[in-house]
Amino acid sequence: MRRLFHLPLSPFSRKVRLVLGEKRIETELVEELPWDRRIDFLRLNPAGEVPVFVDEDGQTIADSTAICEYLEETGPTPLLLPSDSIDRAEARRLAGWFDSKFHREVTVNLVYERVNKRLMKAGYPDSACVKAGAKNVKYHLEYVGWLMEGRNWLAGDQLSIADFAAAAHLSCLDYCGDVPWEISPPAKDWYARLKSRPCFRPLLADHIPGFPSKPHYSDLDF
Amino acid sequence: MRRLFHLPLSPFSRKVRLVLGEKRIETELVEELPWDRRIDFLRLNPAGEVPVFVDEDGQTIADSTAICEYLEETGPTPLLLPSDSIDRAEARRLAGWFDSKFHREVTVNLVYERVNKRLMKAGYPDSACVKAGAKNVKYHLEYVGWLMEGRNWLAGDQLSIADFAAAAHLSCLDYCGDVPWEISPPAKDWYARLKSRPCFRPLLADHIPGFPSKPHYSDLDF
Repeated sequence: MRRLFHLPLSPFSRKVRLVLGEKRIETELVEELPWDRRIDFLRLNPAGEVPVFVDEDGQTIADSTAICEYLEETGPTPLLLPSDSIDRAEARRLAGWFDSKFHREVTVNLVYERVNKRLMKAGYPDSACVKAGAKNVKYHLEYVGWLMEGRNWLAGDQLSIADFAAAAHLSCLDYCGDVPWEISPPAKDWYARLKSRPCFRPLLADHIPGFPSKPHYSDLDF
Repeated sequence: MRRLFHLPLSPFSRKVRLVLGEKRIETELVEELPWDRRIDFLRLNPAGEVPVFVDEDGQTIADSTAICEYLEETGPTPLLLPSDSIDRAEARRLAGWFDSKFHREVTVNLVYERVNKRLMKAGYPDSACVKAGAKNVKYHLEYVGWLMEGRNWLAGDQLSIADFAAAAHLSCLDYCGDVPWEISPPAKDWYARLKSRPCFRPLLADHIPGFPSKPHYSDLDF
């Protein structure tokens, strides 16, 4: 049985869970708290980070981008990268946008400051970070809205890894009620379409003890 | 003519320059100071980050990973990803290690604190960051050394994108004299082999006004 070591509110874990779900690759989820620095987990991934994917034959892959490219190369359809190289570059650019820029400017400031810090017993949230994250998310949401005015999905006509990377980050924020959806109806509409896909269901059932999700989080008609 | 918008001490720009050099893809380099937020550059890449690659037909690609995958798919040999999917995943994992973990724990703390902050006139380096970066680089260098004990190149038998990602970051540090090569002879030997490749020469000729490189930086027998 395939296994994925993950953390419920890790956007990188969520991206891989969405890709596995969309491709209908059955995988056992194993929750891992990276800050425990469990020795057997560090043997799987010396970076000490989730997600880590273990394939049926025991082959281990770390790094969410490496896992997604591996599933794209070896897994079943649907393909989540377009066939044209320039279109593939656009999908990878946007996945990189969320995994790097959005992560640094928003996810770290909001989700990690408020949720991870408390789970790790690493002190109180830094209010300057939270304020910066709340300001930055608006800019990113407007960018999603702007892209969606001329496109069917984030990177073009086809649903791609870009949509899942973006939705993975935004869904972590949405769990905490930190997405001001009202500022961009096209972004909200795009997210509603993703949220109603079967691959999204397990994420909507996530529950972090001590941090209940906001009521609209699992509501498809939010 | 192809063009690459880059910054000399940006590790992500350097990774792409090395890949272009190794594949012998002739490209005009255009220096871009991302913090100037030049409007024509923001039109090319709304993320406002280097590198940005413009192909012969005017197609624009941003994000260093997207550019490298594009060059791998469309450019000439040598291929910088192995043919086996698990080996490809290992090369991508290690490229991700340097572009994400090493970047966050070392490059940001050393190169950005001391060089970029001054170029941007954004104040003095934070000594706690510099201290953390100087400590962290040792751990990463030991990891490179450990990998090289059983491998020909970083990700296995074949020279790959992992070597160029790692060398791109380490070369920025080395410009400033921040790599304690003496702690890991296998890591030093690996870097010396990379440094003597023709694709490395333009990087060794880089000069940042006001920040001369350390004398050993361009010395192949350092």
